[in-house]
Order: sequence, then structure tokens, then C-alpha cells
Amino acid sequence: MTRLFNEPSAFADELTEGFVAAYPHHVRQVPGGVIRSAKPEAGSVAVVIGGGSGHYPAFAGLVGQGLAHGAAMGNLFASPSAQQVYSVAKAADQGGGVVLSFGNYAGDVLHFGQAAERLNAEGIQTTILTVTDDIASASKDEIHKRRGIAGDLTVFKILGAAADAGYSYEDVVRVAGHANDRTRSFGVAFAGCTLPGAKEPLFTVPAGKMSLGLGIHGEPGISEQDIPTADELAELFVAKLLADVPEGKGNRVAVLLNGLGTVKYEELFVVYRRVHQLLAEQGLEIVDPEVGELCTSLDMAGASLTLFWLDDELEKLWTDPVDAPAFRKGVVKAAEQLSESEIQVEDVHAIPEATEVSRDAAERVLAALQVTGKTIIDNAEELGRIDAVAGDGDHGIGMERGVRAALDAAQKALDGGAGAGTLLRHAADAWADRAGGTSGALWGVALGALSETFGDTDRVSASDVAAGITAAKDSVMHLGKANVGDKTMVDVLVPFASELSDRVAAGAPLREAWAGAATAAQEAADATADLVPKMGRARPLAEKSMGTPDAGATSLAMIVNAVATILA
Amino acid sequence: MTRLFNEPSAFADELTEGFVAAYPHHVRQVPGGVIRSAKPEAGSVAVVIGGGSGHYPAFAGLVGQGLAHGAAMGNLFASPSAQQVYSVAKAADQGGGVVLSFGNYAGDVLHFGQAAERLNAEGIQTTILTVTDDIASASKDEIHKRRGIAGDLTVFKILGAAADAGYSYEDVVRVAGHANDRTRSFGVAFAGCTLPGAKEPLFTVPAGKMSLGLGIHGEPGISEQDIPTADELAELFVAKLLADVPEGKGNRVAVLLNGLGTVKYEELFVVYRRVHQLLAEQGLEIVDPEVGELCTSLDMAGASLTLFWLDDELEKLWTDPVDAPAFRKGVVKAAEQLSESEIQVEDVHAIPEATEVSRDAAERVLAALQVTGKTIIDNAEELGRIDAVAGDGDHGIGMERGVRAALDAAQKALDGGAGAGTLLRHAADAWADRAGGTSGALWGVALGALSETFGDTDRVSASDVAAGITAAKDSVMHLGKANVGDKTMVDVLVPFASELSDRVAAGAPLREAWAGAATAAQEAADATADLVPKMGRARPLAEKSMGTPDAGATSLAMIVNAVATILA
Repeated sequence: MTRLFNEPSAFADELTEGFVAAYPHHVRQVPGGVIRSAKPEAGSVAVVIGGGSGHYPAFAGLVGQGLAHGAAMGNLFASPSAQQVYSVAKAADQGGGVVLSFGNYAGDVLHFGQAAERLNAEGIQTTILTVTDDIASASKDEIHKRRGIAGDLTVFKILGAAADAGYSYEDVVRVAGHANDRTRSFGVAFAGCTLPGAKEPLFTVPAGKMSLGLGIHGEPGISEQDIPTADELAELFVAKLLADVPEGKGNRVAVLLNGLGTVKYEELFVVYRRVHQLLAEQGLEIVDPEVGELCTSLDMAGASLTLFWLDDELEKLWTDPVDAPAFRKGVVKAAEQLSESEIQVEDVHAIPEATEVSRDAAERVLAALQVTGKTIIDNAEELGRIDAVAGDGDHGIGMERGVRAALDAAQKALDGGAGAGTLLRHAADAWADRAGGTSGALWGVALGALSETFGDTDRVSASDVAAGITAAKDSVMHLGKANVGDKTMVDVLVPFASELSDRVAAGAPLREAWAGAATAAQEAADATADLVPKMGRARPLAEKSMGTPDAGATSLAMIVNAVATILA
Repeated sequence: MTRLFNEPSAFADELTEGFVAAYPHHVRQVPGGVIRSAKPEAGSVAVVIGGGSGHYPAFAGLVGQGLAHGAAMGNLFASPSAQQVYSVAKAADQGGGVVLSFGNYAGDVLHFGQAAERLNAEGIQTTILTVTDDIASASKDEIHKRRGIAGDLTVFKILGAAADAGYSYEDVVRVAGHANDRTRSFGVAFAGCTLPGAKEPLFTVPAGKMSLGLGIHGEPGISEQDIPTADELAELFVAKLLADVPEGKGNRVAVLLNGLGTVKYEELFVVYRRVHQLLAEQGLEIVDPEVGELCTSLDMAGASLTLFWLDDELEKLWTDPVDAPAFRKGVVKAAEQLSESEIQVEDVHAIPEATEVSRDAAERVLAALQVTGKTIIDNAEELGRIDAVAGDGDHGIGMERGVRAALDAAQKALDGGAGAGTLLRHAADAWADRAGGTSGALWGVALGALSETFGDTDRVSASDVAAGITAAKDSVMHLGKANVGDKTMVDVLVPFASELSDRVAAGAPLREAWAGAATAAQEAADATADLVPKMGRARPLAEKSMGTPDAGATSLAMIVNAVATILA
């Protein structure tokens, strides 16, 4: 269990602070995570990794010469927000483009994906590379659906080595994709970890049993058996991985035997002894193996074996020197330290000049955000109750955290003279950054789309509002991949946007058009009670949610109806 | 708990095999442990560390450029034998002398001390440096009695850096002693670890409680309190260590925050955050801190803080580059690998030429060992029962393991044409190496002293036997530090040696003299029932042992009486 913490909610921030204090020669803190303190080559490709905290040395412990240029550090077992990823990537970029790499989990895909869109939109070439090494999580036919576990390290290592070796952008992406194709892992667990302050472990395994293929956050395994001997576990690992080898593999392989937290070094060495024998018996040559804690899950009891099938190019990159806080090998060049002034930190508080009319519009937008905030705060408990029927019950808390942060940022922007577009941009970033989860990301892009439409110069007309809402709808559907009928906020957003556009186009004043569209939104939200969710982790509970409306659809309808009351 | 193992008794050997297979670029296996695979400078001082297994990265993980030249790897939580230490030191020696360093525990002091004597006797300059950083284990007035815990690393690091920097032998010893004086640690524990195959943990701490100052093998702590917050633990650590600073400390300090096994990295970083703040508030500058698992105790839940008070010389050595399996920093030179032929492995099976008369004597010595073996094996259970009254009950098992190994080695030596001296030397080494514990070491030196007296050339006369027994008695008393009346085997050995010498000097044939002395030995063994032990861990239980004879005294009396039956 996790015993040492202060306020559980501050755990991730505090561990980041301690980590940065401990490794000043390796990392510098930037908003959202850390970047290398070693000065990189100008123009080299920047490798930005990340994920939830609780997996040290993944991810921040892997930032340094020969490895990643930056890591976005999310909350415990939670994806970093798109804003965090964006901010770290901006600070890490050396003008040579960015590769974002992370384990394949829905939340990470969403947030890193969104950051990539923003970076590309700003002219920073950005590519996503998800790691999919866990052979237990999907079949060979659906290899792209596999999760990323300890094999993250091989892909990150190849990315970092290729970038530091001066590979072109295209070649970094190519060789790292190849590394992911050549990396296969299999894991087992004996006991789950307990989050700071939690009363129960995240999952349990019956005493004396071992769960096969269980994920690093307690995602279901594929089977259960008695705890084997060390040799038997080695045999199981090797058999599983030799039954799932990549095409064109050679006879040289890097081996990672990873402890998840409380399977200790001595046990790992006993297991490794047999793994080594078995691979040698197959005529395989082992190159630079790693035995230790490479990707943990707090104090989870478990272990995984990774085989990384090398060719000449991958072997060179795998064995290249590296100097990160928690992964070091070979002879690196002494690093010149980056000076503070050389770190490009995105100033999220910068406020570009705005016209008088746009500043007036910003005031009205703030008023709309204020009534939105009051509505969410008043109804947070009810939203949580609805969400708990088939989800994890955090919709109310997440929305409240998001809207409070957005209001705070919007007020500061207004005080600083922001136009409507900038005020919305600040509110959008703050919402996405603080709310966490999927709804935070979706509200972030929705407000971001409004921001783009409103700008900081022109008067905001009724048709601008309608166009902005339509743009917001498109962004939400693009990012969230949900369609009408999936029992999400999209079921409300689509009829609301369409009704608003139609009424404005027909010449209705904004107040009237919005009120009509809001009524349609409420009807649509109520109608989600008859739907079954199509997406997300709640799938096994889908049936159970029949008769209850969707929480995200409900909160959206509440908001548009509340905003209706204050429109001029 | 420790879940992954095969035969528990093979655990230490198997983990060594796996460790060596995983790190071929760093270490080579030699009898008793490992040495660096990087080719060292000829004539440089060799730093040999060691201790029980189960503390990884201590000790074998700390062998490499800039750190130790070799590590003797004992069984789980048990000192390596003198033979293991000797063998590793011989292989690590580069002609510049050896420094043996280890945490201050009775078993290690005994075995390393004995190895040092043998090395010095062979002309290899050898010095002992015990690490005594644990401020909870003894007061400032008895600072030399303190245990060694995570602060081992600072002393080892200074030793290795000084040796690799080309320091003279005297200067290596001086600066490392100074490093030990400047290193202070304090530890806490939340839960004990479980040895492979054991049903119960080595110790327990009540749920919700934290034990202060508890040793890494479960040695008693100084107090118990509720588990604090991370910040409160940082405050406790810093307060304890700032109340026990070395004389002449400066304002620069290296900081080690160590996890014992299941207090994980994220928790350590949260604690480190506050430690860093508190030390900074005191105006201290922190140099190259380390936060992680530096000295574990299998999966024990605990943590310790070490402050290493630097001066200019220590700071330079602390920050010098290092490249060991589990501790790496800075820019080391690319290492030239040692070739197999350059490793000086002591051939313990070498048999020097012997005369006919000495080979005859060897046959009679083997007969004595055989009757010794039968006696011990027949009485092992009874010896265990006597030992369990006030000790840990393993005397019978240990003696049986020792004598079986000695018999095996003696038979092989005889088959190879050994004289009496060589046969006894092989038997002595095998006994000490395999029996473990204090009695193993003492029987090893006893047989070793006989070996010296007998030699491989001359006929063994009655007075040679008497002289050999007297030499054995002296060796046992010198190594074990026990006197007559302490309730140990010395209570038997002293009257036996003296009676034998007197009777032989008076002209009695060996058989008669030995029989008389054996009777005196039995009386002395029985009389130990009236004594209270003065030494060792059994002290709290001393009273309880009144009325029961000492197990070591009893087994010795049994042996000399058994040998009496076969003397010609």
C-alpha cells in the first residue's frame, strides 16, 4: 500500500516537485511536466513521452541524453491533459518537430492526439507513436489495440537514440515504429497497489494465485493460476513470447525483465537466470538485457518480460549511451546545461491586444461562464449520481473542477484586457487542464472552437455564435469519435447546434434562437435515457444505464438552458 | 512477501547466476561472489565489499568502475564466509592491497576479519573498514558499535573513487574512514519482509504504525508511533540527523533517501520534496542526492535518510563518475574488458606434493573426520534442541552442513594425493564455507590451525597433535573473542588442549593422552549448564539457558570423545 503522502490530491504535484529537486542535472520543470536540462542540438527531433504518474521510472525518469526530451506528467494513473502535453512539447521542441509517444490507453490517445493537432496547427510537425507491446491485451489480428506496458522503454529508447544521432524526422518516426513492431511483452500480477489515501487496493488477486496478462492499472487479465516457481514463470513468459514473434525477427534480442513494485531484484534475478537459459537454448543472443524496475505500478506485485527483436539498426540504437535519472548506460558526452533563458515556456497568460468591441463581447462571455459555473456547482452532486449508474461517478466533480478553473482563468484574462477569443482560449485551456478525464478534454476543444470563431477583433454576431457552436460540435465529434445515438453529449450538441443555426439563419435574434435550441437540447438530453452507451470503459455496465440519461448530455443541456437566461 | 523462487536453499546461488548473466559488461563471477569485468589499473588498491544477499543493489550491484572491485555475496541476510571473502579479494587484488568494507554486523566482522588475517598472512596488505552510519543502533558514545545501513553506499563510493583516482593505500583507507565518520542515517519500517519459502515475515509492525530505528534484518527499533504524513516523516528524519552531526561538518551535504523495497519512488519523491526544503532552510547545499532503492531488504516496507557531510575532497570523490550495474553517474571512460585469463581465481582444489608419511597421516585424519561426521549427524537433532533453549536452534543443522562439506573435500583431497596439512586445509575451508554462522567460522579456523601444524611433509607425532590442538584453541579464542566462563566451546577447548599437552609432555602415548583429555572435555561441557552466556544475540535470553549446557561446547566434547575411539 501507499503509506507516505500528504493531501492525496496534492500527491502528483508534490512528487513532481521532489523529483525535479532530486535531479537538477537531468531535468527542468516546465508547466505540465519536465524537459531535459542538457542542452539539445538545435534542429533535432524532440521526443516527448508521458502518461499518468505512479509508474516511475516511466515516464519522467526516462528524460535525459539519449532518451526523451520531455515528459508530460499526468495525475496518478491518469493521462496528462492535452494542455500539459502541448506545453511540454513546446518547451522541448528544437525546431526539428516533435514525436509524441506513450502507452496505448484511451485517455492518453485522446489528450496526446489533441495536443498533436494543436502543435501541427501551429506549424510544429508532430506525429503520434503509441506503444502496443502487451500481447495479452489483444490478439495478433488487432495488434494496434494492444496496451503499452514495460515495452514503452524500448520504443522511447530507440526514439531518443535516433533523435540524438541526428536522424531526420521521417527516419526517427520510421525506426521507432519499427521498434514498436518488434517489441512484445507479457505480464503477471500477484497483488494490486493502493492509491494514496484509498482504503482498498485498485484490484486484488486471490492469495496463492497469479493473474496472467493483467494490466498495469488493474485492467482484467486473461486467466488465473497458482503461483508457479521462478523457473516455471520464466518458462511461461518465454513460451508466451516465442508464440508471438514479429515477422522477420533475427536471432538477437534485448530482454527486459521488469518488476512492477514489490517483486524484488533478487526474485527477478532468479527468474532471469532461467529466461536467459531458455533463450540461449533457442540459439538467441541476448543484447544489453535489463533486470529491474522499469515500469512500475506503485507497489503492485507483478512482473513482466519483454523481448525486443533487434536488427543491426535497432541494436545500435538500443546500445547507444543514455543518461536519464533512472536509466543510464554507456559513455555519454558530458552535458552542457540548458540555461533558464533557453527554455521556451509557453506563456499561457499572455494576452494579445483586443478591440473595444471584442472586450465588450468578452464581458458577456464571462457572464455566460459565470451562470454556467453556478449551474454546474449547484448540480454537481446530481450529475455524479447519474454518472455513477453506469460510469465512475466523477462527472459532477470533474465538471465542477473544470468550470471553476475556467472561470478563474477567464476573470484574469478579462482583467488583463482580453478580447472574447483570448478569454475563451484561456478558459478552454484551464478547463481541459484541471478537469481531467474525457469530459475535460471535450469541453476544452468546444470552448477552443468558440474562441477561434470569436477572435479578439470583431463584434460577435448571432451568426458568429451559431457558427462557433457548430465548430465546437465538429471539434467534439472529431476528438471524441462519438456519434448521435451513442449516449454522450453529442446527442445534445448536434440538435442544439443545428436548431441554433437554423433559427439564426431564419433571422431570429440570438436570445430567441438560443432559447428554442436550448429547449431542443433538453428534450435530447432526456431522450438519452432510452439509449445504451456505445463507447468507453462502461461497456459491461451498458445495460444497467437504460432509463437514466447520460451525465454529459444532461450537464450540457443544463448549461445551454442556464446561458439562455442571461442572453440580451 | 517473496513469491518467486525454486528451492529456497538454492535462492542465493540462483540469483547470483541470474545477476551475472544480466550484467556481463560489469561483473564476472568468481568463487564467492563477483569482481569487475572492467580491467583495473595494475597496482591500484582493490575495494572488496560484501554482506548477505537480499539487499540489492547492495552489494553486488555496486561493483564497477568508480565503485567496488569485488563483492562477496553471502546467503540471504547471512555474512559471506571468510573463504568467500578471501577468494573474491584474491581475484580482485591488483598488487596494491585490499580494503574490505561492509556494514557493521557481528557475522560480517567475524568472517571479513578472518579473511583479512589470511590475506595479510599471505603478504596482501588488507585493512577492514566497517560502516557504522545507523544513528539509532547505538549512542554517540559508542559510535563504533553502530550498524551499517544505506550509508554503506557513501563509504563504498569514496573507497572506489579514491582507488580509481590512484590514491595511495594509506590515503584510500584514510579518506574512506573519514567518509564513514561523516555519514549518518536513520531508518523507519512499516512491515517486514518474508524470506523465500518462509511462512511468516521476519518481523511485523502493527497496522497503522511505524517503527523507528528498526534494523534492515528486523533488529529491534527504538520506538513506535502512528504512520506520519510524508512531510512529517521528512521532518522526523531531518530532526534526528541534524541532532547527530559529525564534528567539523560544513554546509554541503549529499543526501540519500532510500526505499527498503515497497515504499515506492513516488512516495520517496514526495518525502524528498520536504527533506530538500528543510535542508535548504538550514542553509545547506545539497550535492548529487540519490532518491531510490539503494539498500533494500527484499520487500520490506521502510525508508531511511542518510546525510553525508562533505568537504572538498569528499565532494570530488562523491561526484566522480561511476558505472556499476545498479549505480551509475557521470562520464566514465569506456572500459576495456578483463579477459578470462586475467582473472586470478584461487584454485581451492590445488594439491601440493606430499610425502608418503604425510599421506599416511592424512588417511588417519580422514578417519577422524569420518567419526566426527557420524557423531554430528547422529546427534544433530539433539544439538538443535539444546541450542534452541537460548539460541536460534540451528547449531545441529549448521554443524552437519559443515562436517558433510568437510568430509567431501577431505575425501577428494586424499584421492588427489594430499598430505595431512592440505587435507585439513581443504576440510577447514569447506566447513567454514558451507556451515555458515559463527560455529562454521570457528571450526574453520580450528581445522586450519591443525593444518598449519601438520604440514605435508613430516610424520605427525603426539606432540604435534597437542601443539596443533593448542594452536586451534588460540585461533578460536582470537577469532571468537570468547573466554572461559562465557558458555561457549572455549569452555571445553581450553581444558581439553591443556590436559592433552600436559599428558603428552608427561610421556603418555597419544591414545591415552587424548582419552584423558576427552574425559576432561566432557566434564567441562556438562559444567556449562551452570553458566550464563556472555556473548552474542542470545543475551536477552541468557537467564533462560541456565541448566542447559552450551550446544557448541557439547558438540565439541562429543567430537573429541568420538575421535578417542579410533586413535591407534
